[in-house]
Amino acid sequence: MASSKQDVRISIAVAGLGRMGKRHVRTLLNRVSAAQVVAVCSAEPSELDWARNEYKDWGIQVYDSYEQMIQHSGLQAVWVSTSTDVHASQTIAAIEKGLNVLCEKPLSTDIEEAKRVVEIANQNPHLKVMAGFSRRFDASYRNAKAQITNDAIGEPFVIRSQTCDLIDDTGFFVRYAKKNGGMFVDCCIHDLDLSLYYFGDVIPKAVWAVGTIAHHPELKDLNDVDNGVGIVEYWGGKIAYFYCSRTQAHGHDVCTEVVGTKGKVMVNLVPRLDNVTVAQSIGISHKVQPEYWERFEDAFATEANEFIASIVNNTPVPLKLELGLMSLKIGWALQEALLTGERIRFNEKGEQLDGGRARL
Amino acid sequence: MASSKQDVRISIAVAGLGRMGKRHVRTLLNRVSAAQVVAVCSAEPSELDWARNEYKDWGIQVYDSYEQMIQHSGLQAVWVSTSTDVHASQTIAAIEKGLNVLCEKPLSTDIEEAKRVVEIANQNPHLKVMAGFSRRFDASYRNAKAQITNDAIGEPFVIRSQTCDLIDDTGFFVRYAKKNGGMFVDCCIHDLDLSLYYFGDVIPKAVWAVGTIAHHPELKDLNDVDNGVGIVEYWGGKIAYFYCSRTQAHGHDVCTEVVGTKGKVMVNLVPRLDNVTVAQSIGISHKVQPEYWERFEDAFATEANEFIASIVNNTPVPLKLELGLMSLKIGWALQEALLTGERIRFNEKGEQLDGGRARL
Amino acid sequence: MASSKQDVRISIAVAGLGRMGKRHVRTLLNRVSAAQVVAVCSAEPSELDWARNEYKDWGIQVYDSYEQMIQHSGLQAVWVSTSTDVHASQTIAAIEKGLNVLCEKPLSTDIEEAKRVVEIANQNPHLKVMAGFSRRFDASYRNAKAQITNDAIGEPFVIRSQTCDLIDDTGFFVRYAKKNGGMFVDCCIHDLDLSLYYFGDVIPKAVWAVGTIAHHPELKDLNDVDNGVGIVEYWGGKIAYFYCSRTQAHGHDVCTEVVGTKGKVMVNLVPRLDNVTVAQSIGISHKVQPEYWERFEDAFATEANEFIASIVNNTPVPLKLELGLMSLKIGWALQEALLTGERIRFNEKGEQLDGGRARL
Amino acid sequence: MASSKQDVRISIAVAGLGRMGKRHVRTLLNRVSAAQVVAVCSAEPSELDWARNEYKDWGIQVYDSYEQMIQHSGLQAVWVSTSTDVHASQTIAAIEKGLNVLCEKPLSTDIEEAKRVVEIANQNPHLKVMAGFSRRFDASYRNAKAQITNDAIGEPFVIRSQTCDLIDDTGFFVRYAKKNGGMFVDCCIHDLDLSLYYFGDVIPKAVWAVGTIAHHPELKDLNDVDNGVGIVEYWGGKIAYFYCSRTQAHGHDVCTEVVGTKGKVMVNLVPRLDNVTVAQSIGISHKVQPEYWERFEDAFATEANEFIASIVNNTPVPLKLELGLMSLKIGWALQEALLTGERIRFNEKGEQLDGGRARL
Repeated sequence: MASSKQDVRISIAVAGLGRMGKRHVRTLLNRVSAAQVVAVCSAEPSELDWARNEYKDWGIQVYDSYEQMIQHSGLQAVWVSTSTDVHASQTIAAIEKGLNVLCEKPLSTDIEEAKRVVEIANQNPHLKVMAGFSRRFDASYRNAKAQITNDAIGEPFVIRSQTCDLIDDTGFFVRYAKKNGGMFVDCCIHDLDLSLYYFGDVIPKAVWAVGTIAHHPELKDLNDVDNGVGIVEYWGGKIAYFYCSRTQAHGHDVCTEVVGTKGKVMVNLVPRLDNVTVAQSIGISHKVQPEYWERFEDAFATEANEFIASIVNNTPVPLKLELGLMSLKIGWALQEALLTGERIRFNEKGEQLDGGRARL
Repeated sequence: MASSKQDVRISIAVAGLGRMGKRHVRTLLNRVSAAQVVAVCSAEPSELDWARNEYKDWGIQVYDSYEQMIQHSGLQAVWVSTSTDVHASQTIAAIEKGLNVLCEKPLSTDIEEAKRVVEIANQNPHLKVMAGFSRRFDASYRNAKAQITNDAIGEPFVIRSQTCDLIDDTGFFVRYAKKNGGMFVDCCIHDLDLSLYYFGDVIPKAVWAVGTIAHHPELKDLNDVDNGVGIVEYWGGKIAYFYCSRTQAHGHDVCTEVVGTKGKVMVNLVPRLDNVTVAQSIGISHKVQPEYWERFEDAFATEANEFIASIVNNTPVPLKLELGLMSLKIGWALQEALLTGERIRFNEKGEQLDGGRARL
Repeated sequence: MASSKQDVRISIAVAGLGRMGKRHVRTLLNRVSAAQVVAVCSAEPSELDWARNEYKDWGIQVYDSYEQMIQHSGLQAVWVSTSTDVHASQTIAAIEKGLNVLCEKPLSTDIEEAKRVVEIANQNPHLKVMAGFSRRFDASYRNAKAQITNDAIGEPFVIRSQTCDLIDDTGFFVRYAKKNGGMFVDCCIHDLDLSLYYFGDVIPKAVWAVGTIAHHPELKDLNDVDNGVGIVEYWGGKIAYFYCSRTQAHGHDVCTEVVGTKGKVMVNLVPRLDNVTVAQSIGISHKVQPEYWERFEDAFATEANEFIASIVNNTPVPLKLELGLMSLKIGWALQEALLTGERIRFNEKGEQLDGGRARL
Repeated sequence: MASSKQDVRISIAVAGLGRMGKRHVRTLLNRVSAAQVVAVCSAEPSELDWARNEYKDWGIQVYDSYEQMIQHSGLQAVWVSTSTDVHASQTIAAIEKGLNVLCEKPLSTDIEEAKRVVEIANQNPHLKVMAGFSRRFDASYRNAKAQITNDAIGEPFVIRSQTCDLIDDTGFFVRYAKKNGGMFVDCCIHDLDLSLYYFGDVIPKAVWAVGTIAHHPELKDLNDVDNGVGIVEYWGGKIAYFYCSRTQAHGHDVCTEVVGTKGKVMVNLVPRLDNVTVAQSIGISHKVQPEYWERFEDAFATEANEFIASIVNNTPVPLKLELGLMSLKIGWALQEALLTGERIRFNEKGEQLDGGRARL
């Protein structure tokens, strides 16, 4: 029994020890006082070796099986940070085991499977199940939302949003691309979610997208691109347009603009690592965050703290699980437009009228 | 006979005394030492009254007829700054009269008519005939071009460009909309031209566009919008995407980004009137240029000086007249996509494969 | 006994429950996993009432006496966050009690007393005793230092640094001014420390300062100002100049520039709350951090974590305690120049040659 | 007789064909329609050779003697752009010849001589005589003035202003330093003038300055420095402080901040060549104007046009000639403080109480 709130500790396990899994462990250890990491798991022998050494003094059990990990004695929550193709099945298994779950986005590469996760979560309302749309925990995106809510820009009607990653020469991205569902499902999903965040409840009317391969020719065989541009027209005269890239030279360049009838709010239009600027003979310059981790590290800590707090206090999770379904659906339509060259329409209920091949 | 270069003065007339016509006269009087404004014309009685008073001490003859004006004795050049629907016919009339012509963009709202202008100009190679793509004379766009030529960003493959005007509550824009050819032909034409400027010789492959009416419901009957977003896919894996708006709250917000394999060059990402910044209790702020005039006044002066210099020195005009044809063609296709909801494709010769209605 | 590193918790007490004391408690509770707050103290009845209610479920004992608090069973460390006049005596008492101490800057308003703290700390090398120069824990200042160390700007020879606070209409600052030693000792001390951080071991040669009262006439009787500008010339041709203000309209505006022979590094030249920018009819604007807390919250958390880590791992404190003595000495000389109108010189050993009254 | 305003041309001569003289000729030829350059002069044989060739088709007579040039038939005005030591004598000679004069700042290196110029000009009120404080013609400085006049920042009480030049490795600056009166008279004079522009009528109370030689050891023998920092305290609780440098690595970095009781206005806090920004693997950067010419070219054109207009229209010159006397006086006091290490005081009439050596 905890003698004080300082002694409350939720036992949590992290599934997946890729780049992000390791970072989530570090966040939980250092920045989430109310969490105790009791277990991790991976299917990669090298990650397991690394973890056994790294975590040996930290009271963290290392498993090579997700199924075994979720049976860890006293376990209360799981952070699912594996590849997208197993997000849904692992989340469902954890729920069925009676565990709270924070599942990385997107819930699935299949819309039906994603719906099933939501269904099962809804059948277990005592458990906290949340999808990791980390940007919704970022202070700047939240401030932008507050400005819009407070009518600083009037009625929003156009959104531009981009997710542009630093070029990756290690081959990591291409290997990962096989399992992630494609540019608009994986990379653009946050931007799609932001368009829903700022527009409110909107239904897609038509989408189109094009793409190009600027650096990774291997993507051709995977039916994907490393740079894509898409437009989503929503019913009601609202438009969102997107640029996603895996090949930026200068760093992680993620920005969003929301245009309204009385103004425009911009988040991170010119990215910068910190507030240092250097003047030299070549001009005046500043560095850029190399990866989304540096841009969103604080958001991930906020997300973890708010998720853990919802367990501690038995309050609703900060993001409804259903939120991810609509962005997933639009992401698939954009991906289909990209592959077929056709524009994809929806009726006013949000049912897709054209195509449907890409989703199979 | 001019006794020295300081005494050389090209006699020029300005056709049209709307906002821009008046500004061109002022530029020619104050910032183009080698030009002498000898005549102006307008069909608007109020503009004629204004001009007769304003220019009475300046040695400028005011005409109510373009045809009469171009017969002004000793006239050497005309600046055609009337509405788009008469650009072509007035340019042709001036050429036939043996005059040099600077014609505002776009050459026409009809592609065939635009071609005819080019044809006739080519038959009169001793005359300087130029279309007014003023951004190509802007120091920053030229610097961006130089950076790209000097390989600062590698091979360019994605361009984003926007032309967003301050909201206009006077009704001027809507009245003018009737004659200007639509959002993507009128407002986006500079951005289309910039995509050709930075990509070089590229051929469109497919386009799509959507639009919305945020402020001017009268546009519905004119088959136009006040905010539009479009994508142009070029053959060879190059993509340009555009945002045009007539309803910005904060001023004239025109920016362009060119993404290449080794970097990105940005022009005017955050617009500002001058280099004054004010810190007050509401935060830190700066003003924005209210109109394209404030943004491009220097470019217009450079354009005028370079055009006049080509007459004085009998050198080629700084911009080939043909340049405007391709952007006009793509503008029309975007406008058609906007109106029909369909994507419009082109073959590798640049021949339009879909639709064709909107151009009629 | 801690079964794992996750269970290690240093028992710490916070002295002083003013604005900063409360914030330090919150940082320790939420962002320093290896710390456990076991006690707090204050002499203010209202603060005591507040704390008894606020901390009642958190296992934190509330004391009305510093002397009693430092006898709390199992206590390992104290964070001294009281007013400057008792910093030194409380730090010494804690050391004598065998406790580790993090003492807010400046160590004292009296140079001899400050020296005594250092002396006693040095006699207890097993204890971690550190002065809270929080800017040295800020990511941007550290990055700037790294740039200088890596020769990005050559040899630094001019530093400009300012600490400008939001205007305070509550009277808090004026009440606090009585005990803080004056503008250049209290407000400028961080900037002085930064000049030592970036220049390295430098000795003052001459200083001058002027000030004005823009908003708080009561300061006149306290021999202080609410805006001051000073110059410090260091031996060896190095110059630092400073601006301190308590009366800014727009927020906490703290910036530093270091000019070197090959370039200039700038920290926070244009302050901003986050990366949100808003365009409205009044122009383009962004918010500013209202207080140093918002600017330096992360730095305080880093400071707390690094201090606690030095106890856990028995490693040297990240900042040598002596560091604060030189900046205190220069601060006093500037304050004296401000009050007397005279320039104050030092010899090459750093001994003050002029004046000496102000320090009495 | 001019048949129209377009034919009005004031005959002007430019004295001095150094960097600035040549630029002024170019400005007059290309950007000042109402001016005709009829003559130039220089004492440098190489400059004379250059000019005879350059201007041969432009109807410009090249003189090797100032005295002869001002006798040029029909001459109406002279732009004195020679070295500071002859500014006053040449201005007086031109006035006595009945010519209008635009004299570069400062009027003289000697306060008495400067007063004499003003006296003689006042005796010839039909002539337009103006000192070239070019920043007062810069759009941004004027906008800042308008903001202050319109109470955007309340009552101004602190000004920071800097003039920092790109490092000059050609030796030009050092050669020029012999005749220019020293750092605070030559380089800082614009900043001093700006403090008077924004504060209004203020009287100095005390000044202090220090300097260092970062790059040009030859300056030691000239009793000058290449980097200087100074403070001017004005009677009435107003403070201005300055940084002047000849050794910046990144370009011409000239900025001014005016702090008021309700806000702060900043001009050019982060200098930039144009509105192009480049993102590359090294970060995000922009270029800086290399010299004051690129920063102030438009201001010089405005200055020339307004000066010529005052002759054409027989209106007062835009800047009263007396304006330069006070800034010259303070510049001398700062230079003296720099050389002696003493602070220099003034009484409430502005009479200097300390020192006086440097001025001899």
